[in-house]
Amino acid sequence: MIDPEFDKRLHQAAGAVEALLNELLGPAARPGEIARPDRLVAAMRHGVLNGGKRMRPFLVVETARLFGGATEPSLRVAAALECIHCYSLVHDDLPAMDDDDLRRGQPTVHKAFGEATAILAGDALLTYAFDILADDATLLSADRKVALTLKLARASGLGGMAGGQMLDLAAETSTPDEAGIVTLQAMKTGALIRFACEAGPVIAGAAEEDLQRLSDFGRKIGLAFQLADDLLDLTSDSTTLGKAAGKDAAKGKGTLPALHGEAWTRGKLADLVQDAEALLTPYGADADILKAAARFVANRKN
Amino acid sequence: MIDPEFDKRLHQAAGAVEALLNELLGPAARPGEIARPDRLVAAMRHGVLNGGKRMRPFLVVETARLFGGATEPSLRVAAALECIHCYSLVHDDLPAMDDDDLRRGQPTVHKAFGEATAILAGDALLTYAFDILADDATLLSADRKVALTLKLARASGLGGMAGGQMLDLAAETSTPDEAGIVTLQAMKTGALIRFACEAGPVIAGAAEEDLQRLSDFGRKIGLAFQLADDLLDLTSDSTTLGKAAGKDAAKGKGTLPALHGEAWTRGKLADLVQDAEALLTPYGADADILKAAARFVANRKN
Repeated sequence: MIDPEFDKRLHQAAGAVEALLNELLGPAARPGEIARPDRLVAAMRHGVLNGGKRMRPFLVVETARLFGGATEPSLRVAAALECIHCYSLVHDDLPAMDDDDLRRGQPTVHKAFGEATAILAGDALLTYAFDILADDATLLSADRKVALTLKLARASGLGGMAGGQMLDLAAETSTPDEAGIVTLQAMKTGALIRFACEAGPVIAGAAEEDLQRLSDFGRKIGLAFQLADDLLDLTSDSTTLGKAAGKDAAKGKGTLPALHGEAWTRGKLADLVQDAEALLTPYGADADILKAAARFVANRKN
Repeated sequence: MIDPEFDKRLHQAAGAVEALLNELLGPAARPGEIARPDRLVAAMRHGVLNGGKRMRPFLVVETARLFGGATEPSLRVAAALECIHCYSLVHDDLPAMDDDDLRRGQPTVHKAFGEATAILAGDALLTYAFDILADDATLLSADRKVALTLKLARASGLGGMAGGQMLDLAAETSTPDEAGIVTLQAMKTGALIRFACEAGPVIAGAAEEDLQRLSDFGRKIGLAFQLADDLLDLTSDSTTLGKAAGKDAAKGKGTLPALHGEAWTRGKLADLVQDAEALLTPYGADADILKAAARFVANRKN
């Protein structure tokens, strides 16, 4: 069962970041923009304002709060991160990639707007993430903005998420070994979740040691997130998931749950949660909400 | 005929930025990256190291030099901009977009590596641009990095280049009026060229008045660039162009040369060059190379 305080704070963060994204993805051009084509804005909104759980934004907001970071800049960084996450979903769903028609029970962007528009909407969301970070309205020092820009770019680029997607494509034709699967997943989903946990300490100007600790926490829950996802793909049905289930197995993709089975996976998830919680021990009860997040990530049902 | 000093400096800038891109797109992961998949790196290199003229990098380097900006940071900004320009070509060439098999006489990225890899290579190049700007090796103050990041994101995102692509797609089914064509082109190609000319003053910390002047210069030559391009599409053949000619007309796309004819276009180009040169009058002979660039852009044959 979901911790009620966690559930409340997750919904609060989701509501706040969605309100901000709704405003950021408005129709009016900003200074330095020439015009915002209606159709492109609509496709970007379709890809972003679609009722996701907003776990990554939550992690940004709560890791910042742990070190006394203000909510306002946290939400801007969270919105930037969510633009990256959502662009990756828009492009992953394309016919040339995973070829998915549904995302959270709704038509994917290319089903609703066509392939060309979906490609552009993804590109524009990716670009907008860095716009949001750099904007004057993100009330952080230039040094912190630059640090966040570099970390976000590394987490999402060729050595992070995009690279992970590349390895994932290759895995359809040649199944990687266990080490290969671990690297793939650290890149494909782990890197952005780790960024979410590093963002808070950077926003708040926390000590290097705290940044490292939260980075390790992010790595643990990133791995737990992917294991839980792969386990759901193996054991759940499409209605519960809100997207096609069993796709990995159908494509012959190797996952750790497929390799080691459900019992091993549940044991591994429990270990990861324990490790993640232990990393937060120095922060006492202030970190309870992040510990609850670790448990939620490992035990989620969709 | 091409001004020999301009030709020399254009080649110098191209050589320097290509050497840097070659190094940046090496196989080894950087701090914060997990691994660089070989195939993704190869596709990114194919999309970037393909013998382009490197006009945008040249403009960054030379507008910086005009105000005493150092070459080293200029080349990093130029490399970032070229990553954006090249990502846009990789995605534009995709079957769902312009569906081009050839780019500068070579197979496009999706012809050489497949569609999925081309999508990811474009995404990774886009992301890498912001990585390059934010990196410690870009020896600029955090304030200037943030200013460049914001300008580059606005020039290339939903209100700039990506938005222009969106309008261009729409123009295939519903021909825009003259004002619509001007907006489309200011976004699709103008915004990045204007950014190139604004980047120098920002890198060098020039006065606001100089930034505005170079921004206006960039707008003029951006428009000239597009007019020259459309005129070539109308009057040249595929062999000279190194890509398919007559595509705009075949798709029923409206361009100003198609609307007003060759004589009008040549007159307009002459006016734009004159305006662009006039904007640089305060800088005397120091700006001769940029004036030569304006003439080159307007009179180019491919």
